[in-house]
Amino acid sequence: MMEKEEIALAFRQVQQHICLELERMDGNGRFQSDAWDRTEGGGGLTRTIKDGQVLQKGGVAFSEVFGPVSDVMRKQLGLNGDSFFATGVSIVLHPNNPHVPIIHMNVRYFQLDTGEYWFGGGIDLTPHYIHKTAASMFHSRLKSICDSFDPEFYMRFKPWADEYFYIPHRNETRGIGGIFFDHLNHAESISKEQLFQFCYELAYQFPEIYAEQVAMFKDKSYTEKELHWQHLRRGRYVEFNLVYDRGTKFGLLSGGRTESILMSLPASAQWEYMAEVLPDSPEQQTLDLLKKGVDWV
Amino acid sequence: MMEKEEIALAFRQVQQHICLELERMDGNGRFQSDAWDRTEGGGGLTRTIKDGQVLQKGGVAFSEVFGPVSDVMRKQLGLNGDSFFATGVSIVLHPNNPHVPIIHMNVRYFQLDTGEYWFGGGIDLTPHYIHKTAASMFHSRLKSICDSFDPEFYMRFKPWADEYFYIPHRNETRGIGGIFFDHLNHAESISKEQLFQFCYELAYQFPEIYAEQVAMFKDKSYTEKELHWQHLRRGRYVEFNLVYDRGTKFGLLSGGRTESILMSLPASAQWEYMAEVLPDSPEQQTLDLLKKGVDWV
Repeated sequence: MMEKEEIALAFRQVQQHICLELERMDGNGRFQSDAWDRTEGGGGLTRTIKDGQVLQKGGVAFSEVFGPVSDVMRKQLGLNGDSFFATGVSIVLHPNNPHVPIIHMNVRYFQLDTGEYWFGGGIDLTPHYIHKTAASMFHSRLKSICDSFDPEFYMRFKPWADEYFYIPHRNETRGIGGIFFDHLNHAESISKEQLFQFCYELAYQFPEIYAEQVAMFKDKSYTEKELHWQHLRRGRYVEFNLVYDRGTKFGLLSGGRTESILMSLPASAQWEYMAEVLPDSPEQQTLDLLKKGVDWV
Repeated sequence: MMEKEEIALAFRQVQQHICLELERMDGNGRFQSDAWDRTEGGGGLTRTIKDGQVLQKGGVAFSEVFGPVSDVMRKQLGLNGDSFFATGVSIVLHPNNPHVPIIHMNVRYFQLDTGEYWFGGGIDLTPHYIHKTAASMFHSRLKSICDSFDPEFYMRFKPWADEYFYIPHRNETRGIGGIFFDHLNHAESISKEQLFQFCYELAYQFPEIYAEQVAMFKDKSYTEKELHWQHLRRGRYVEFNLVYDRGTKFGLLSGGRTESILMSLPASAQWEYMAEVLPDSPEQQTLDLLKKGVDWV
């Protein structure tokens, strides 16, 4: 049986791998490190990058926290145990170029003193301009990782992402989705070790998956108008994260480390009342694709 | 007994007064009008301004909505009746100049078919740079309106604003506060007519209160650094509105008109991981004053 310490150690190592690979991809930006402690137990290492060649602002955060189950956790997460252990890696990257997509990834492991445990996570892509071939490549990558563990994972986790990364008040998905999963435990067809491996693979392959997207668009020139559109889309990203994202909300309400939680926000975002989009424009074509249930593969 | 239609009509008229006065103050910007209908009953008139001389982005919204009490309203607002009526005026104004404060005002009336009714509202100021004399002038204005209705209003509603306009995850108030009140009804020492008059006075005097603040700072020159600070403070404003503001959250969750609800967001905002503020700087002096319980008068 896999121990929680092994999982946390592997997550810590994969964070390092991801940062090194992302620095290589960026060519210029360097990750800063901020180690922090949590009063009630545990802590983390938040790594952030800014003003890189490709990446304008981003973070790759590792945390390993434990202690008594608080009232907020009991209420908001519906936990019954007395004490918990949680470890995970979270990433959000905002690029400079509006043709390069925003990306998010998270893998996490949770365990209670009752013996219950589960894995959760996800990865989703938010292009400011949707490019169908690139979207298909992204989803194919995810499907292939899923398929190597369980032939049903992709068809379960892809719609789950469509539901999760959805902005009801805008009636649009955050981007082209990806996969999302939670509460994977002994009820799955694969072992705890394999569930861990699945999360680990997602995290390990993350830099390659994103580098593929970046390579396609990073040298594409852009206009002021495209930059403005990028900022409006970032506004929607902010809306999703602050209004709906469960991790963000739970983190803020439960007294998590604010700067680590909000590292997901862009360097800048814009809002416009009743922003107009021209019919048949690339902007409108993107909006038309921000729907649940699109078969990207 | 004052009828709901009278209240709605007066709110509609005060919206017009406010927009005219704000246009006069701005000297350049003009309010656009967007009338909208609500499927379940009622509608509103959203008036927005952008790229004015003083005001970069803002809105003055009127609404008068009614219909059956929905499940979300029952749950989130704890309402028991079968049908409701609500009318109000809401304002948020974001200026160009970082020395000019952001301002918010809201007055509202709510009534149920059970016979229950109440007034709510508030006004608060969010200077990017706190200026003690200006803050004192603002609070004195509010106190004087409060005092002309009930000698206890200001001492009740000022701490209520401190509690309401507070960002727990930042451990700071949104700005210098003001007044906030809710559920004012027959239990108050003054009549329903007078409660209405109190709300009306706040709304009617709003342009004058803000014009006084604007006049003090609108011609003050500013640097790139001050502009950046303004954008970081706007980021906090976004955080407050999307994470905590009850009106925003309820509006978005209950299927309100998104563009009218989110007219409160700035044209642009910025975020920086662990933004640093120099000791003894005007920025740090402002942060030091973002506390509950400051006696501004």
